[in-house]
Amino acid sequence: MIVEPAADGARAGVAPKARQARRLEIRLAGTGGQGQILAAIILADAAALYDGFNVVQTQDYGPESRGGASKAEVIITDGEVDYPKVTRPDALLAMSQQAFTRYAPAVREDGLILADTTWVKDASAAPTGVRLVGIPLTAIARDEVGKALVANVVALGALAALTGAVSREALERAVLARVPKGTEELNRRALEAGYLAAGAARESGGERRDAARL
Amino acid sequence: MIVEPAADGARAGVAPKARQARRLEIRLAGTGGQGQILAAIILADAAALYDGFNVVQTQDYGPESRGGASKAEVIITDGEVDYPKVTRPDALLAMSQQAFTRYAPAVREDGLILADTTWVKDASAAPTGVRLVGIPLTAIARDEVGKALVANVVALGALAALTGAVSREALERAVLARVPKGTEELNRRALEAGYLAAGAARESGGERRDAARL
Repeated sequence: MIVEPAADGARAGVAPKARQARRLEIRLAGTGGQGQILAAIILADAAALYDGFNVVQTQDYGPESRGGASKAEVIITDGEVDYPKVTRPDALLAMSQQAFTRYAPAVREDGLILADTTWVKDASAAPTGVRLVGIPLTAIARDEVGKALVANVVALGALAALTGAVSREALERAVLARVPKGTEELNRRALEAGYLAAGAARESGGERRDAARL
Repeated sequence: MIVEPAADGARAGVAPKARQARRLEIRLAGTGGQGQILAAIILADAAALYDGFNVVQTQDYGPESRGGASKAEVIITDGEVDYPKVTRPDALLAMSQQAFTRYAPAVREDGLILADTTWVKDASAAPTGVRLVGIPLTAIARDEVGKALVANVVALGALAALTGAVSREALERAVLARVPKGTEELNRRALEAGYLAAGAARESGGERRDAARL
C-alpha cells in the first residue's frame, strides 16, 4: 500500500516523531551529475509552492564536493524552520555506494533509506531498525523510461510514494515546471515509474527491516 | 576598476569584515521565474568546485514564496560554515522592486547592493553608506544579449565583477556546466555582458554611495 498524504496536509508514512513535530528532514545524496540538487529543488517546490509547507532547501559543498560527492537537503515543515541544517534525516536517498556508506548511519532509527541498487550493493552501514528500500532507480530510468539521466525523477517518485512527504499532484507540477522544455513527457514517465517501483518494492518485500542486505 | 580576486584565493572587493573572516554572504532575490535559484547554484558551484571554497547554498521558501517572491543565498568561506543562514548579507542582488525594498535594509553598511534598474526604481530602502550599483540587467539581457531569460547570468557576471566573490574562470565553467545544452554561447555572452556592464557602471559613476536614488 502506498501511503498518501492525509487530507489535512499532515504527512503520513513518515516517522511518528517527524509527524508530531511537522518537521521532515530529507537528504538526497549521490555522485555529481546525478541531479540530486535539481531533485531537491523540485521536492522543495512541490512542498512549498504547491502543498503549502514552509521549506528550506540546502546544498552544502564541503571538501567532499570536489571529490565528486553530491548532497542536497530539504526540510519540510508547517512551522518555522528554526535550525536550517539536516542533522538526523527522516529519509535518505542514496544513489551511490559512497553516499550510502557515508550518510546511512545518520538516518533516524525509525527513518527510511531509499537505495539505488543499480549502484548500492552493500547496505551494512544502515542502522538497525531503519526502513530500507532498495530499488534499481538508474536501471529503471535507463531500461524502462529510456534515459538514465532521469533516474533522479524516478527517485523522486519513489521517495514521495514511500514517505508521503508531498502530494503526487504537487510533485508532478513541480517536475514539469523545472525540467527542460521538450522533456516533459519523459519526466512524467520517469515519475510514474518511480511511484510504480515503490509500490512493487513494498509488495514484493523489497522493504526490509534487516539492514545488512538489499 | 574591476577588482579581481587575489591570487591566493582571498576575495577582494568585499567588505573588510567579510575579507578577514573569509565568510561572504550573498543573497539573490527577485520574483519567481527570474532564475535566482539557478544563479545561486552556479555561484555556489563556481566557488566550491572550481575556486575551492566551502559553500552552503540555500533556498528558504516561506509564505512569501507563494506570493511569487524568490530568494536564494550563498555563503562562501574558506573555513567551516558554522551557521548556515544568511543574516547580514555582504552583497544583495535585487531583481525586483519588492525584493529591493524587502531585503536592502538587512545589507551590511559596508556591503554591496546590485539592483536591476529595469525593475527597481526606488532605492530609498538602501541603508546609508551601502555601495549601491544600478544596472539594467534585464534590459541588457533582452536588448544586448537577445534573451531576457538570461538576465540572471548577466547579473552573475556583474555581481562577480563587483564583489570578486569568485574568479571569472570558475564562474564561466560553472555557468557552462549548468545551463541547458545548446544555450552555452548565449550564456557566455550574457556573462560577458554582465562583466562589461559592471565595469561601465563603475566608470560612469553608476556606483553611488547616496542610496536614495539609482
